[in-house]
Amino acid sequence: MDHPKGLAGIVVDETHISSTKNERLTYAGYSVEEMAKAHASFEEVVYLLWKTHLPNREELEDFRKDLVSKMVLPAETIRLLLYIAREPQHPMSILRTTTSLLGTTNDVDHDEPPKILAKMLTAIAAIIRIRDDKPFLEVDPDLGVADNFLYMMTGKKPDSELSQMFNTVMILHADHEFNASTFTARVVASTFSDYYSCLTAAVCALKGPLHGGANERVFEMLMDIVQGDQDPIDFVKDQMAQGRKIMGFGHRIYKHGDPRACILKGIAEKLAEETGNIDLYNIQQTLADYMLEKTGLHPNVDYYTALIYHCLGLEKETFTLVFAACRTSGWLAHVMEQRREKTLIRPNSEYVGPTDRSYIDDTCIKEVL
Amino acid sequence: MDHPKGLAGIVVDETHISSTKNERLTYAGYSVEEMAKAHASFEEVVYLLWKTHLPNREELEDFRKDLVSKMVLPAETIRLLLYIAREPQHPMSILRTTTSLLGTTNDVDHDEPPKILAKMLTAIAAIIRIRDDKPFLEVDPDLGVADNFLYMMTGKKPDSELSQMFNTVMILHADHEFNASTFTARVVASTFSDYYSCLTAAVCALKGPLHGGANERVFEMLMDIVQGDQDPIDFVKDQMAQGRKIMGFGHRIYKHGDPRACILKGIAEKLAEETGNIDLYNIQQTLADYMLEKTGLHPNVDYYTALIYHCLGLEKETFTLVFAACRTSGWLAHVMEQRREKTLIRPNSEYVGPTDRSYIDDTCIKEVL
Repeated sequence: MDHPKGLAGIVVDETHISSTKNERLTYAGYSVEEMAKAHASFEEVVYLLWKTHLPNREELEDFRKDLVSKMVLPAETIRLLLYIAREPQHPMSILRTTTSLLGTTNDVDHDEPPKILAKMLTAIAAIIRIRDDKPFLEVDPDLGVADNFLYMMTGKKPDSELSQMFNTVMILHADHEFNASTFTARVVASTFSDYYSCLTAAVCALKGPLHGGANERVFEMLMDIVQGDQDPIDFVKDQMAQGRKIMGFGHRIYKHGDPRACILKGIAEKLAEETGNIDLYNIQQTLADYMLEKTGLHPNVDYYTALIYHCLGLEKETFTLVFAACRTSGWLAHVMEQRREKTLIRPNSEYVGPTDRSYIDDTCIKEVL
Repeated sequence: MDHPKGLAGIVVDETHISSTKNERLTYAGYSVEEMAKAHASFEEVVYLLWKTHLPNREELEDFRKDLVSKMVLPAETIRLLLYIAREPQHPMSILRTTTSLLGTTNDVDHDEPPKILAKMLTAIAAIIRIRDDKPFLEVDPDLGVADNFLYMMTGKKPDSELSQMFNTVMILHADHEFNASTFTARVVASTFSDYYSCLTAAVCALKGPLHGGANERVFEMLMDIVQGDQDPIDFVKDQMAQGRKIMGFGHRIYKHGDPRACILKGIAEKLAEETGNIDLYNIQQTLADYMLEKTGLHPNVDYYTALIYHCLGLEKETFTLVFAACRTSGWLAHVMEQRREKTLIRPNSEYVGPTDRSYIDDTCIKEVL
């Protein structure tokens, strides 16, 4: 075989979008840490990912207005959503169907990335509202994209501090070069399939517990500790003794700490304080210190978002939906880039089973021979 | 960059399922040509792909009965299908939503591959019936899986000759190692996402015109020639002069002819004769001879299936649905294999854009700094 399983560490293509080189995450050459600290807006970063340069003031305002104006769903989609989003399945299964549905209503053949991203954000907010048995909310043309998304999910218009924090959360999740869902989207794009097919496939991959599903598992672990009134370290020792993976730690690329986690930690602490969840934050800190000492593993991006989303009032089953909303911007950037390549992604495999078997000798259905 | 774009020729993993080594297609070590010539049944081949050994007589009959008994859909799925399958979008978009929907109705968490394959075949037949404004047909417990699928699509129970031909068509499409849709399914499976997510993503990839969508394009080309009353060779010359790709020719792996196409050619000829389509077959022959002479390219699997599906009474928009129905068996085999590996597929990329840019210097939103 040419390669280690899972293509770990193998460079399969070039990109102009993002990089994790030297364990630093950059978007089109700009440090994500710097952008987060300088309070870049989500729409500015989306513009950057899609065009690989920053917008000027007019371009940014036009882009914001355009995206916000498109954050509406066709009546037909809402009708179907009201039906399917009430099903008892996991919200990521609902989002999988919903993403596909967004691409089957009338006149979608010419949908371009801004409209597609806007529809995805609105649909995700709508799924969460339906689950909460709350009415849909209309987009506010004066707010930014992230603020509108947060408002349409939770019903609360964020103040400027929360707005900055949520924009930062969205920015940090927007892209991460060839992660499994983005790579999935690129393989699908390489067949020249349509945008909605690429996004649907990406959602399918993000749903997996080894990918986007991890933040939900982190929160389940926290709840197990709290509800069982357990000592966090005893809990983790016990889990490890049983050979179980502790969710939210380690990353294939970041061996010395996930740069996103450092920023998210500050946001988690602030939100936990404000919403009466500081006990959960403290448990996370205890666990993180212990894990680093015992295993050398640092918390990853999922570790603190679990708590952040909880503090925002979201149910754990919907955490991965918010991740999907943010990452849709990156998926679209990669789909556009892959489409320009015009090359089918089609690797080879090495067959390692028995060879030269004779069907005629071995089949049980001799009468047809 | 480590690799040519599209991972062409690069072995990314081992498999026990199928091989295209030396331009011969084998399933678990058995030649597909031999199985086709000896009239293996579709269910025998599915059993082989899933277990990598052939069934004995009892196992085969049990497997057939089990699959056929599961070729029913929940009432709730049918209700939704009646709604979404009438939408004006491409049937592959409908199938994308449908595959996802099959995984969101009640009690699907424990669905195993036999039930999943059976539901997919029935759903695909149902989409075709709804498009044709015909009533659903119930499975016939005495028929095989392929016969039932053909019957539930077309309303005709096949005689033994047609049954053999259609089983062969399904066998030849069942698997093809790491093609783009199968690779997509494996990437999704590697995140430990569920079966329906893996299949939905595979459908997304198969939809692309560089993959499963090719058979429809072949038929469009034939219709362009017939309806324009054009000389086939003039038509192709003209297309090539305009730099257009002639669909249905060449294959990344088979440089000396696609072994599946040789068998399908015989079936296409026989069916074309029986259904009054021999003129279309003759045009295909003229084109194939010309293309081989001028470009060295041989017809691939899509070239003859286009005519075969037309002769079976199917609309061109549904050709890729039939491909999906056959390939679902292979997708499931690969998903099961990938799940056993417990390794995330997550390659790297090489960032080739500008580096060390300063956001603080370049952003237009200075007021927040």
